[in-house]
Amino acid sequence: MAHSATEDHAPTLPPGVFAAALTPLHPDLAIDHEAYAEHCRWLLASGCDGLAPMGTTGEANSFSVAERIEALERLIDAGIPAAKLLVGTGCSAIPDTVALTRHAVALGAAGVLALPPFYYKNVSDDGVYAAYDQVIQRVGDAGLKLYLYNIPQMSGVALGHALIGRLTKKYPHTVVGMKDSSGDWNHMKTACEMFPGFRVYAGTEKYLLAIVRAGGVGCISATTNVTCALAGQLYAKRSSNEADALQQVLTKVRDTIEQYPVIAALKRLTAARTGRDRWRVPRPPHLPLDDERFEHLKADLERLGFVPP
Amino acid sequence: MAHSATEDHAPTLPPGVFAAALTPLHPDLAIDHEAYAEHCRWLLASGCDGLAPMGTTGEANSFSVAERIEALERLIDAGIPAAKLLVGTGCSAIPDTVALTRHAVALGAAGVLALPPFYYKNVSDDGVYAAYDQVIQRVGDAGLKLYLYNIPQMSGVALGHALIGRLTKKYPHTVVGMKDSSGDWNHMKTACEMFPGFRVYAGTEKYLLAIVRAGGVGCISATTNVTCALAGQLYAKRSSNEADALQQVLTKVRDTIEQYPVIAALKRLTAARTGRDRWRVPRPPHLPLDDERFEHLKADLERLGFVPP
Repeated sequence: MAHSATEDHAPTLPPGVFAAALTPLHPDLAIDHEAYAEHCRWLLASGCDGLAPMGTTGEANSFSVAERIEALERLIDAGIPAAKLLVGTGCSAIPDTVALTRHAVALGAAGVLALPPFYYKNVSDDGVYAAYDQVIQRVGDAGLKLYLYNIPQMSGVALGHALIGRLTKKYPHTVVGMKDSSGDWNHMKTACEMFPGFRVYAGTEKYLLAIVRAGGVGCISATTNVTCALAGQLYAKRSSNEADALQQVLTKVRDTIEQYPVIAALKRLTAARTGRDRWRVPRPPHLPLDDERFEHLKADLERLGFVPP
Repeated sequence: MAHSATEDHAPTLPPGVFAAALTPLHPDLAIDHEAYAEHCRWLLASGCDGLAPMGTTGEANSFSVAERIEALERLIDAGIPAAKLLVGTGCSAIPDTVALTRHAVALGAAGVLALPPFYYKNVSDDGVYAAYDQVIQRVGDAGLKLYLYNIPQMSGVALGHALIGRLTKKYPHTVVGMKDSSGDWNHMKTACEMFPGFRVYAGTEKYLLAIVRAGGVGCISATTNVTCALAGQLYAKRSSNEADALQQVLTKVRDTIEQYPVIAALKRLTAARTGRDRWRVPRPPHLPLDDERFEHLKADLERLGFVPP
């Protein structure tokens, strides 16, 4: 990967396991920057090769542009290496996406994770193409490494292979990869096959082993906020004969947590890990997981033999 | 309605026909403030009782908070009366909704039209309630008149009657109405029946006569950017024996335009009306209507005997 850095002076995002980092809040729902940096440090020390702050799990779209800019600055100031960050920057409005993308690139982020505009539904591929084209043109920085964010169940906009093909053809050094959170294994596998060198991260650790075997580079997941150690272990042993058994356990844990409201469940588990109650609180429209559901979640995880960190 | 103004010093939004005003752009996709004020003046002179700027049709969520603030200021500076405005302010992030809502209230807007947070899907009613509660508490202005914006096909969040009941019970003087763009006649009719005094605007002129007869106050529509004269005529004659026949014609025109990408079609028709080509251009992910489809649209409207203004 080093040659890429010499070619265009931008670091390449590491392969492996990423967490779509949770964003801790103060009781007044402002971002708790100290706890945020602490959590990100812990993730990087606990199995994560990189982080995707301000993704869906990080409640990105519940924060203003100004809040997101400050959060990233404070994170990097606190020592979280920009070279390990894939920063979520995709907003509903192009000027917001441009502002966040420019800022992340200026701070040295190895990549940005760009949702398509997500308010309007049933938009054409031509329209989505035009939106990404506008963002890239307006950012106008050769150092930009943009990863497409395919999460149609939230964004309402599916990024198909034809669209990926058009964007990577026009911007081969800029549109360099994708986080595929569609849950559609065939979609991500086909992207790996159709676009060699295009860096596909599965949006779940369920497909960590499969995506690496298919030529993808890793996973970026909500649940790795909690499963990072196990996912990191699997990634390290991906070529060993333990790999499939580890994947099975990891998949079961992921499937279990997914039965709950994911952000609330992960925040509650993180509150338990850190002993810091305020971790429980997400910003509306998300709400904290109540005690009863949390007890169920803990019991479900115990049955799997998974002890949350 | 006058007693309301003396009670809380806020004007009551007029009943009748509203257009969800289109937002004209310069070739660089910035808002064309002169053309915007001109269009809004024309709408108010051509059958509209009020306007809903920065709604779905106005491409609100394709603009930054700063762009939306400037657009409203320039509109009011240009003489568009704030007392006739229902200003779209609902964003994905609560701080953005709060900033836009405060600003609209400070400028004297008769109401704000507030989408629920729209990025996350499958959120609970409790979570949506909490989001509106946060907005109202943080705005903290007794002059705020908030209209719920029910447009689940875009927002991914349906505002059901139980939620409306909870919000109007807690905030009877603040949560005063709804724009119901669900297209679900029973939903809006039931809201009129269940909540007397709650001001329901149908999100389409198709239901103008029906909603008024059911106790609602009017319609707020995309297509009234073009059908305003006819819709205004129907509203004026709503108690006459011509009303049903007028509604039939209006409904057919609406149904016809809806067969096309609506924002693009309305912008193209407005470009034709004004002779100003730049009116054609929306912001991505929307794209202009091409010549071929525009010719089809014109032919379809001619067959109905509808001559666009």
